[in-house]
Amino acid sequence: MVEVAVMGYGVVGSGVVEVLTSHFESIARRAKEEIRIKYILDVRDFPGSPFAEKFTNSFEQILNDPEVKVVAEVIGGLEPAYDYVKRCMLAGKSVVTSNKELVAAKGAELLKIAQQQNVNFLFEASVGGGIPIIRPISQCLAANDVIEIAGILNGTTNFILTKMIREQMSFQDALSMAQRLGYAERNPEADIEGYDACRKICILASLAFGKHVYPDQVYTKGITDLTLADVEYAGIWGGVIKLIGQVKKLDDGRVEVVVAPMFISRDSQLSGVDDVFNGILVRGDATGDIVFYGKGAGKLPTASAVVADIIDCVKHIKARKYLYWEDGSSDYVAPYEESKIAVYIRAQAAEPDAAFEAAQKKFGAVRRLYRANASEGEFAFVTGNVLPVTDIKAKLCELKQEGVKVLSMVRISDL
Amino acid sequence: MVEVAVMGYGVVGSGVVEVLTSHFESIARRAKEEIRIKYILDVRDFPGSPFAEKFTNSFEQILNDPEVKVVAEVIGGLEPAYDYVKRCMLAGKSVVTSNKELVAAKGAELLKIAQQQNVNFLFEASVGGGIPIIRPISQCLAANDVIEIAGILNGTTNFILTKMIREQMSFQDALSMAQRLGYAERNPEADIEGYDACRKICILASLAFGKHVYPDQVYTKGITDLTLADVEYAGIWGGVIKLIGQVKKLDDGRVEVVVAPMFISRDSQLSGVDDVFNGILVRGDATGDIVFYGKGAGKLPTASAVVADIIDCVKHIKARKYLYWEDGSSDYVAPYEESKIAVYIRAQAAEPDAAFEAAQKKFGAVRRLYRANASEGEFAFVTGNVLPVTDIKAKLCELKQEGVKVLSMVRISDL
Repeated sequence: MVEVAVMGYGVVGSGVVEVLTSHFESIARRAKEEIRIKYILDVRDFPGSPFAEKFTNSFEQILNDPEVKVVAEVIGGLEPAYDYVKRCMLAGKSVVTSNKELVAAKGAELLKIAQQQNVNFLFEASVGGGIPIIRPISQCLAANDVIEIAGILNGTTNFILTKMIREQMSFQDALSMAQRLGYAERNPEADIEGYDACRKICILASLAFGKHVYPDQVYTKGITDLTLADVEYAGIWGGVIKLIGQVKKLDDGRVEVVVAPMFISRDSQLSGVDDVFNGILVRGDATGDIVFYGKGAGKLPTASAVVADIIDCVKHIKARKYLYWEDGSSDYVAPYEESKIAVYIRAQAAEPDAAFEAAQKKFGAVRRLYRANASEGEFAFVTGNVLPVTDIKAKLCELKQEGVKVLSMVRISDL
Repeated sequence: MVEVAVMGYGVVGSGVVEVLTSHFESIARRAKEEIRIKYILDVRDFPGSPFAEKFTNSFEQILNDPEVKVVAEVIGGLEPAYDYVKRCMLAGKSVVTSNKELVAAKGAELLKIAQQQNVNFLFEASVGGGIPIIRPISQCLAANDVIEIAGILNGTTNFILTKMIREQMSFQDALSMAQRLGYAERNPEADIEGYDACRKICILASLAFGKHVYPDQVYTKGITDLTLADVEYAGIWGGVIKLIGQVKKLDDGRVEVVVAPMFISRDSQLSGVDDVFNGILVRGDATGDIVFYGKGAGKLPTASAVVADIIDCVKHIKARKYLYWEDGSSDYVAPYEESKIAVYIRAQAAEPDAAFEAAQKKFGAVRRLYRANASEGEFAFVTGNVLPVTDIKAKLCELKQEGVKVLSMVRISDL
């Protein structure tokens, strides 16, 4: 029998307790050990709970109990999670977590401690909820060089965009609906500003390419500026707008990482990933494109990923799973301004036809998009060639000086 | 350093040698050991090959060389692969294989030998080519009961169906094209009759539910009878026809397994899996639906899956990966006749309206489908309720006696 502690009894934590209890026998069969919850750490009391006697509000009790071999950290946020996780591993316990903020900020450091202490630090649930993605990247694709990863990594924004695309709901209305349904938090900033997706692409980038990418190194743009006009133009262009987190390996050893809304062609496997679902595309040199699709959040999917990690820790209680990346560096992520992209632009001018012609002269090959109920003076186009972001900004600046008001700019994905 | 042998130098075998050689250093880093190919077994000689000195046509040389710790079997077919794999494991070597025929026919027996000999028997490449699916099912979903698995498991038939759907190509023309492009073999029977998909669903079923399902227990229907009329009606109904392998756990402990063309709604994630791609849906009680998508065949994707298994064997040279299912039994798979399904029926009668009314009386809720260029006397409908296959057959028999000629029947999927 192996004893474990669950730190945090929120949505995911209570799910972990539920899965460990309800699947007790099948888990014991798979782990070849019975897994018993010894403690549940929470500042709150749960007197009516069937697990009432397991609750503790003392982290030290868990830390100092040598019988606890594996700890699940599902508190979320940086502190006190970071402190707890570190001290648990230094005390010789393996740790599993669903905490993407923690892994994105401190992954390299925590993986190093795990290595030194010969314990495991696993975090399958930190990306993609119940979708297996960390393991497939680290194990199954071991014989394959990953070239690029791109994904719809945040279910809340994907739900909002789906409502905007399918039902012409405004951003605000769709956000309110997501909040009513419990898909978005009261303070939705982490989702709609792209911070959550940013943490996840940092984790995937670090894992796939072996070096830590930190959130503050990643150009991150959310979906708050998107309008129904942009959604309509994306449809006319032949696709949909999705919030994409993307990382590519560059030839010079650096990586290009971005989180931004993008036009995705209807031919792309990611274009059909709707509602609260996540889809993650892994492009390998041998395997080609592989896409993983499923619910990227939610109590039970996320909990089942945490529990799968617990099982793996129990099976490898004396061995170590190989999962490692080294620390990052300030010059490892290429500046966003250097990346070459194609864009969609929606603008307004007193004489839109003339303004479009001026734009065409600056951007070269462009394709103009028309919609039925364009507002007065509106015009829109997509560029045909990729250009460095700096150049695009310079050209837009010139257009502005010529009296053009740029209303939206959205990147065109090459996925 | 660990020495390995590759048995078979066909498409996959040469790919395995290529991946092991071209990714030598990154593989060594991941396996924490250099992996060297000591032998390549083939009856043919390859005098100009850079690996010429590694070739042998003597299986005994590999078997009796204690330095060879891991053997990749990529010969294909039942014999001599079965004999070789068994003897290698009995000699204490781990074996990895891409051979779905072997795993579908002999998996339980070979897994038992692996257990007794304390070696590994891994077969990630046997299903889904380079798509990681065996590991995610056995590991990541450990904390989750799998309820159902369904997938587009054969790229050749999916290519043919895609051509029929998108370009109104006839089955024969699409098959010829697939043969020209190298997607279908000269003798395409294993693909188009569904045998290949059947082997793969047997492997997935055995793995997910812990008991061997043998190919001869599975009702298997290929795509040779499908016509463009059926494809058109599927579109009018609101979907596409795909060849699906499916397994469900029944409440009584048995499983329902089938391989057959099915109408798939456009809302299903599997409906967008086109061309030679595979898509596999795993439905778990905690995770909900997870879909894995990618190229299900091809030299390098399959080879990279074989090499990932080799790496895993090297990392677990003294430990064992937990991968096991027990032997099957004749009453484990529910008879196909008992399964309750909805169907699409295309038929012909002297008076189609009257014949449809007669059908409606027999089947209850049905929805008639109309197409523009229906042939003389043709009518088509889908049933609304699910009925046991036996009942459907009995009703169709009655219709035949009333002068109705049934031209096609295709199952309607609930995916």
